[in-house]
Amino acid sequence: MTEPTTDLIIERIKTALETQRIEDAVDILLELRPVDQAEVFNSLSESEKDLLLPALDISTTADLLEELEDEDVLEAVESLSTELLADVLDEMEPDEAADLLGDLPPETVSEALAQMEDADEVIPLLGYPDETAGGLMTTSYIALRKHTRVQQAISFLREIHLDIEVPYYLYVVDRDKKLIGVVGFRELVLADPDLTIEQIMDPEVMSISVGVDQEDVARVMTRYDLAAIPVIDTQQRLVGVITHDDIMDVVEDEATEDIYRLASVSDTDLYPESPVIDQLKGRLPWLYLNMVLALFASWVISQYEDVIAQVAILAAFLSVIAGLGGNSASQIVAMLVRSLALGKVEGKDVLRIAARQVWVGLLQGLGVGILIGIGVAIWQSNPYMGLIVILAIIGNMIVAGFIGTLIPLTLNAFGMDPAVASTVVVTAITDVFGFLIYLSLAVLALPYLT
Amino acid sequence: MTEPTTDLIIERIKTALETQRIEDAVDILLELRPVDQAEVFNSLSESEKDLLLPALDISTTADLLEELEDEDVLEAVESLSTELLADVLDEMEPDEAADLLGDLPPETVSEALAQMEDADEVIPLLGYPDETAGGLMTTSYIALRKHTRVQQAISFLREIHLDIEVPYYLYVVDRDKKLIGVVGFRELVLADPDLTIEQIMDPEVMSISVGVDQEDVARVMTRYDLAAIPVIDTQQRLVGVITHDDIMDVVEDEATEDIYRLASVSDTDLYPESPVIDQLKGRLPWLYLNMVLALFASWVISQYEDVIAQVAILAAFLSVIAGLGGNSASQIVAMLVRSLALGKVEGKDVLRIAARQVWVGLLQGLGVGILIGIGVAIWQSNPYMGLIVILAIIGNMIVAGFIGTLIPLTLNAFGMDPAVASTVVVTAITDVFGFLIYLSLAVLALPYLT
Repeated sequence: MTEPTTDLIIERIKTALETQRIEDAVDILLELRPVDQAEVFNSLSESEKDLLLPALDISTTADLLEELEDEDVLEAVESLSTELLADVLDEMEPDEAADLLGDLPPETVSEALAQMEDADEVIPLLGYPDETAGGLMTTSYIALRKHTRVQQAISFLREIHLDIEVPYYLYVVDRDKKLIGVVGFRELVLADPDLTIEQIMDPEVMSISVGVDQEDVARVMTRYDLAAIPVIDTQQRLVGVITHDDIMDVVEDEATEDIYRLASVSDTDLYPESPVIDQLKGRLPWLYLNMVLALFASWVISQYEDVIAQVAILAAFLSVIAGLGGNSASQIVAMLVRSLALGKVEGKDVLRIAARQVWVGLLQGLGVGILIGIGVAIWQSNPYMGLIVILAIIGNMIVAGFIGTLIPLTLNAFGMDPAVASTVVVTAITDVFGFLIYLSLAVLALPYLT
Repeated sequence: MTEPTTDLIIERIKTALETQRIEDAVDILLELRPVDQAEVFNSLSESEKDLLLPALDISTTADLLEELEDEDVLEAVESLSTELLADVLDEMEPDEAADLLGDLPPETVSEALAQMEDADEVIPLLGYPDETAGGLMTTSYIALRKHTRVQQAISFLREIHLDIEVPYYLYVVDRDKKLIGVVGFRELVLADPDLTIEQIMDPEVMSISVGVDQEDVARVMTRYDLAAIPVIDTQQRLVGVITHDDIMDVVEDEATEDIYRLASVSDTDLYPESPVIDQLKGRLPWLYLNMVLALFASWVISQYEDVIAQVAILAAFLSVIAGLGGNSASQIVAMLVRSLALGKVEGKDVLRIAARQVWVGLLQGLGVGILIGIGVAIWQSNPYMGLIVILAIIGNMIVAGFIGTLIPLTLNAFGMDPAVASTVVVTAITDVFGFLIYLSLAVLALPYLT
């Protein structure tokens, strides 16, 4: 939506930098929102970036670094002095600062932490894995005590001059820092100033443990429509807050991951215009797996070389049978992967699902197979040829229903991503079974086919 | 995460209903959050639902209906009197009430609207298509005027006793209802009570037009990390607000849609355990399309029946060539569909992307083809057989790079979903080209193959 404007702004900044009007370039950049600043900044050449970055104030640099992708941040950070880096890190959200520090070389991290003022907000976050609640949460939240009066709380908030983006809620903790309630800024505005926080708080506050996987965090927040969720440690103590924007990114990333894995692309940072070498790294290994499995299927076919030599037209329907079985199995894999991701299916239902899918496979096999079989029988003027195509398709669809359910659910049961390799492996298995059924039937019916 | 508890609660409610302790059943249900109430409610039998629903108070019924899926809502609504339905609709969020009314028969709608108190909040929403900003937005927002003082605004908010879930922000409008700024509840709490709203508002408020597609709304809100976005009409007047929770659903739904369409499943409400008839409706039509395309590929192969009769082993590698080309093309389609959805690729870059994908195809073809070719040459003790397999794989990968880019981007250019039919059609085209290249080469090399 902003494309034409963005292109124009990039041009204006490039021109300003070319003519050494660096302050003008900065002013143009400052008119944008941080995420747009990052996009524009990324479109500049290395030398243009090196001119512009030192001219930005610390707060803008921090905003910019928060929005850049990991590898672009590292590049940008290299041109900053440790002192400046420390100031910028102080200015960043603690969770973003921790993410950035997690990507830097250890010596840079310790130097930067030593020079930071708010290092104590960031250090606790460094220990949590990126993809857990601890890795997503920020430590910049406000905790209140239950006996505080509304008026006191408001004065306190005014006093501390919130310069940070505090989440939408204030959390109430007891003397041991245990989470006991939540108050929205909305409730605070509307409450009688003489009431205590305890009287206006919601004690039924949902929380999540610090070690929970980000996918589960996303599922809980989406299910309960939460704008923010507090994170607690094993002693029920409040340690951080996760906000809806972090979760939107998780939801999008997880979906991208599923789509890519289902299509045998292993690097979710890959785009159609990514460097060729990255594309080969993320895609070629899967083609090698496909190759090995396909050659096994070829070997199966080669065992029937004699039959094919006698009835060459058999070869024409190999790909029809394999293709339909593979397509039907891919449908099941996609439904299962998505249903597991959205928590709409439970892994333990494997037998019930397989039974249903085998049943659907039989019906799909009948629906498609009979039509093709009749077509083939007429085309080849041979009812037996039609019959073996029908039976092979039905058999292969039943196999597809079973294998398409079993492989993803087995991967899932072993704690692996059900999307990984599922499509390639499932398709290969249905291919082999399809060829086996079809060509064995052809051997049986050979006297009627020639 | 809540599964064991949910199962237990369902059991307790069922037992209570069986023994006619309906009030107990209601009490158990009331301990849950609305979304969990909906899950539990859905697990009950029709007769159990009919016992429980009339016993719920209006507010709980409204919460429950908001969380139920469309078809379950309709079922539930049938058992309510028009009067009760009108009360429930009054209690619901206006956007949810409008969605529900949109699914009811026209006569029920007009009767319910006639008996509603807050019909004026809901009626304006009925005209907007479900999948646009207008269809997503709620009309329950608070608009302030810029000369109002903070203290006045707070008193006003206390007076109207917000019983509705107002979004996180208050919007500022001029006398023509034009949107001119935004104030968070947070800013209101912290501001000096004597300031005017104009002094504390952010005039740089982002907004979105009422007709914008929900996917674009989601993209803007995700990009700028917004918890809520105001919706304006063509005269820049504020008409509603969209909140992050609506967007999370959109992001998930759109991802599901892409995953399903890429795998040839057309109904996004389909799960592995859905009724067999629904599975056939959502999946079988695609298999028929696959069938027609596959039979065309069969016809291509049948044109080479003579060659295959002479060199039957040719049949063994048909599926290897088709499979690898199809796999490579599916990788491109998945990347393109996702990149278009996330706005990371622009449709106009078609030639540049195609060029890169053809180049990647050539390299993947070399990488996989040479290995297979050598294997085949050794296996069949015939270097010419190896060579035609290599050339066919390389040729087919190049075709895959081109077709895999072209089909989704062409669909996109015509305003269609690039995921629809892409995989099936792209795979069929690469199959045909793969067979043509491979079998034509076999004709040329025939003297060396026998």
